[in-house]
Amino acid sequence: MATEGNVMELGLIGLGRMGGNMRERLRRAGHTVVGYDRNPDVSDVGSLKELVERLSAPRAVWVMVPVGDPTRATVQELADLLDEGDVVVDGGNSRFTDDQKHADILAAQGVGYVDCGVSGGIWGLEVGYGLMAGGSKQDVERLMPIFDTLRPEGPREEGFVHAGGVGAGHYAKMVHNGIEYGLMQAYGEGYELLAASGIVDDIHGTLKAWSRGTVVRSWLLDLLVRALEQDPSLAEIEGYVEDSGEGRWTVEEAIRNSVPAPVITAALFARFESRQDDSPAMKAVAALRNQFGGHAVKAAGPTSGAGDTRS
Amino acid sequence: MATEGNVMELGLIGLGRMGGNMRERLRRAGHTVVGYDRNPDVSDVGSLKELVERLSAPRAVWVMVPVGDPTRATVQELADLLDEGDVVVDGGNSRFTDDQKHADILAAQGVGYVDCGVSGGIWGLEVGYGLMAGGSKQDVERLMPIFDTLRPEGPREEGFVHAGGVGAGHYAKMVHNGIEYGLMQAYGEGYELLAASGIVDDIHGTLKAWSRGTVVRSWLLDLLVRALEQDPSLAEIEGYVEDSGEGRWTVEEAIRNSVPAPVITAALFARFESRQDDSPAMKAVAALRNQFGGHAVKAAGPTSGAGDTRS
Amino acid sequence: MATEGNVMELGLIGLGRMGGNMRERLRRAGHTVVGYDRNPDVSDVGSLKELVERLSAPRAVWVMVPVGDPTRATVQELADLLDEGDVVVDGGNSRFTDDQKHADILAAQGVGYVDCGVSGGIWGLEVGYGLMAGGSKQDVERLMPIFDTLRPEGPREEGFVHAGGVGAGHYAKMVHNGIEYGLMQAYGEGYELLAASGIVDDIHGTLKAWSRGTVVRSWLLDLLVRALEQDPSLAEIEGYVEDSGEGRWTVEEAIRNSVPAPVITAALFARFESRQDDSPAMKAVAALRNQFGGHAVKAAGPTSGAGDTRS
Amino acid sequence: MATEGNVMELGLIGLGRMGGNMRERLRRAGHTVVGYDRNPDVSDVGSLKELVERLSAPRAVWVMVPVGDPTRATVQELADLLDEGDVVVDGGNSRFTDDQKHADILAAQGVGYVDCGVSGGIWGLEVGYGLMAGGSKQDVERLMPIFDTLRPEGPREEGFVHAGGVGAGHYAKMVHNGIEYGLMQAYGEGYELLAASGIVDDIHGTLKAWSRGTVVRSWLLDLLVRALEQDPSLAEIEGYVEDSGEGRWTVEEAIRNSVPAPVITAALFARFESRQDDSPAMKAVAALRNQFGGHAVKAAGPTSGAGDTRS
Repeated sequence: MATEGNVMELGLIGLGRMGGNMRERLRRAGHTVVGYDRNPDVSDVGSLKELVERLSAPRAVWVMVPVGDPTRATVQELADLLDEGDVVVDGGNSRFTDDQKHADILAAQGVGYVDCGVSGGIWGLEVGYGLMAGGSKQDVERLMPIFDTLRPEGPREEGFVHAGGVGAGHYAKMVHNGIEYGLMQAYGEGYELLAASGIVDDIHGTLKAWSRGTVVRSWLLDLLVRALEQDPSLAEIEGYVEDSGEGRWTVEEAIRNSVPAPVITAALFARFESRQDDSPAMKAVAALRNQFGGHAVKAAGPTSGAGDTRS
Repeated sequence: MATEGNVMELGLIGLGRMGGNMRERLRRAGHTVVGYDRNPDVSDVGSLKELVERLSAPRAVWVMVPVGDPTRATVQELADLLDEGDVVVDGGNSRFTDDQKHADILAAQGVGYVDCGVSGGIWGLEVGYGLMAGGSKQDVERLMPIFDTLRPEGPREEGFVHAGGVGAGHYAKMVHNGIEYGLMQAYGEGYELLAASGIVDDIHGTLKAWSRGTVVRSWLLDLLVRALEQDPSLAEIEGYVEDSGEGRWTVEEAIRNSVPAPVITAALFARFESRQDDSPAMKAVAALRNQFGGHAVKAAGPTSGAGDTRS
Repeated sequence: MATEGNVMELGLIGLGRMGGNMRERLRRAGHTVVGYDRNPDVSDVGSLKELVERLSAPRAVWVMVPVGDPTRATVQELADLLDEGDVVVDGGNSRFTDDQKHADILAAQGVGYVDCGVSGGIWGLEVGYGLMAGGSKQDVERLMPIFDTLRPEGPREEGFVHAGGVGAGHYAKMVHNGIEYGLMQAYGEGYELLAASGIVDDIHGTLKAWSRGTVVRSWLLDLLVRALEQDPSLAEIEGYVEDSGEGRWTVEEAIRNSVPAPVITAALFARFESRQDDSPAMKAVAALRNQFGGHAVKAAGPTSGAGDTRS
Repeated sequence: MATEGNVMELGLIGLGRMGGNMRERLRRAGHTVVGYDRNPDVSDVGSLKELVERLSAPRAVWVMVPVGDPTRATVQELADLLDEGDVVVDGGNSRFTDDQKHADILAAQGVGYVDCGVSGGIWGLEVGYGLMAGGSKQDVERLMPIFDTLRPEGPREEGFVHAGGVGAGHYAKMVHNGIEYGLMQAYGEGYELLAASGIVDDIHGTLKAWSRGTVVRSWLLDLLVRALEQDPSLAEIEGYVEDSGEGRWTVEEAIRNSVPAPVITAALFARFESRQDDSPAMKAVAALRNQFGGHAVKAAGPTSGAGDTRS
């Protein structure tokens, strides 16, 4: 890990939207980044082995691949390739429960491990990424030149934290994303109510006017304003929302810790609902109303039933 | 109000699904019922005036028409037609806040008023109706022969209550219906989970096995079992559920009284969602994810977008 | 497993509130039950070994001990003691994910396995228990004399179901309990609203009047009426509610299957909240209001702050 | 309404935390503000009559008093005092349904009316206030010098909107506050989970690290970081949170418009719960568990019951 001034060498595995941008941001700052991706068009080397060989010991390798099996496999392969004194960072959105396993696999080879939650999306290239690291003090400190380049400019503590031991970085990122679900849903509900009521004429202008001075000003609000500038009634977007794990894990953790989390959970369930063509639960409710009240039901399929005719 | 033994005369306005059955149940018990409905095919008389003339004073008139303007107009008309000492029952699902207004209109003519929540749906004809009455002791007592016939057999207090003053009957019915929303949604969610998990093979059989001995046994469960007997996967029913006021009023009352009502409210919102083709709130959330993460969105309309390609 | 007519031998491990009552119900029907409990005052034998020796092969042993380690240890011990052709039933509230593990442990010794959800609480002794069984057809069938005695009288399918393979019984019981959470919370919210509004004078009478004919009639309602008969304002009971696992598992399963379960989850979170002396989340919200609005906060501890003085 | 350059005269009624700061911000910009408050220590004049006399016609008067009766009374009094061509602004947190009534009262005297939602709390003096105005184009335009001073510096449309006709300003503010409830609760839940799990060591540092670059960065987050700097575990603040109307109105409006608003509603209910010493709903649930399972209940009062002893 040759460092000169504030620059150092880094192996970076996974050059998708996030990893590719991170490589660029690091290189602009003078770091030497050797990137690997399965896609040879973007990869600097042909294999992990070659990546490791291109780095000077003690090496630092940042993993930025999909969570679960791909990350596990990468960590396992790195454990075989790296040497004592090297360090691996998992910057993906791994579940925090994976971290100690990964740390153990690497520790058996004398390789250090840091988990690092990375927030900021496609804006991180220019703005910098919010970083939450977990691991030993020693492992975290040797990576500071990388963290300091990836994080936004300004005071270090406003864009980076060494949150705790192994797993703490991903835990912090998980909670961050759970909060994110709640924030987005709150704006979504407010937007829908403005649109439904017909009392506010200028919805985009209203959201934009919240940009400064108000209690609800935020980056997400700015993005919603931006989206409405591009598509004033969101006519081109379907209300279909994926979820990528952290929201579910946050709710599972809330349950494990007996923490009430009604807002984050409601936001998660709203995403589930958004992806359902029809709801079996509501079929059951409709069936029940029909059973006790003779309330008309809507027939499934092309021909729809009559309205409620109960007098 | 000629009563002989336990039978009496009753005017009954509104002969739809509920009113028609109630007339039948009352007649089977020997009461004299003069029914009026806008539909001449089911009406016994041609007008409210004629209905009033057909009854002996002191008269009792039961109103069973849609809530809001129709009920208000009927009460107003009855106030003009009836005489001091008569009594009116509103057995519809009026908001409790209407009751004092109706009582005042009638009281100005010396006419009594009772609000009566009626539960039981189309089963009431055979099983009897659960009744919740509000009004003065005197007004309620003179109607007891009617209440005793309409309510199910068994101890009076298991199917009838004089809940309190004017409005208390409809308030009790409102809360009853709010609870009903929550109960139905709980069964719906459980049903959906059984169906989604694929671990329980015999879903209908499982629900049916809950009919006796279990903690969740109930009449609604029996009805759900019945619905599944008729349509084992509810394939013919769309998950589209109307709501008819009481659920909304229950939540509004919860808010007015600072009572947390997360279950009843979630059940209400699930109905709102069930009726939306697309959710503006989720459009906003999808737009936000696209803005910050470059997450693909589903294009609205026939051509659907690609999946989430964030790496 | 000597069976004569409809009676058979059963080993029963765990003679607490549930197990003790089940032994009694089985004995009343003529079954031979050898019970074991750590508490020698209620135990028929001094050890599991003695229990096994007292039974004729092929044996049936019903396990009714706390979930998790105690059940696991009992299954392991039985695997060592039992012989090929015997069968074990886990009638406790085990997580369904434990069942295949237990089945595998026993199968290695040629011992069959059935998981059986049991509902009914302390009322089961007299009323019978609702039963949901998972396992092979063969294993379930040989236990039918036991199931038929434990379940309530009436048609078998109204109190018993062979829900599916190993795990399906506990899965069905888990969902049953999740629904139960939702039902109880719905009644609880309705009760609170009746109590808070002051419009209904006779709350106990109102709930009692829902016993017959109404849509919300159920066994749980009957129990709530009974509780109010014993303590009309529930003055002697604190609003502190434990949860015992199934509710959490239901929500976790809902998440795993992308099933929205807002009602069941709200009921679970209400229990979490009921056990908190103070809420860190609401501390944060109070702190935020104080930060932006200068809203007064309530000081923690004996001296409480002033009200909101924002003008 | 003498205006010279960008300065003008304004009457300002209500000089509490908000109104007092607004007067100061306006005066710093050169406007002539005549303030009235019931508290003579802060009031510039002794009566509304005197305030009106001190202003040159056509006058502009800004009302900043508590919602409901005080605002209504002030509007009524102003209608009597003001002349044709004057204009009144209600900058308080009135329910939007009051606005047309106030506009009508004033219109009868030829006085214009603008409702203006004002966000920013105690920070507005220095940072400026987010403003959402409703009313006629003419009325809003003549007040622009005031709006431009009160709003934050930067592009006008990022801190001010003419949202629509009478009522639209307060409607926008109501939705703003509903969203605010959801945002605060989301942060609160995340904070509680971080605190409960014990996996993240540096909670304050983690929240602070979200300040830049992350998806959840916002002004509310900055305030939460600030609160934790002052009281690292919020030990001095009780989790007791008032609500001041807009959250309730938002949910009521969601219901009126059939808009699902699970997150905003959950945030509102969490505040209700935070103010309950004990929950009648959870008393009912505890009573039910005791009834069916013999589960121990916690006795209310000083002596607490035993734990759950169901085996």
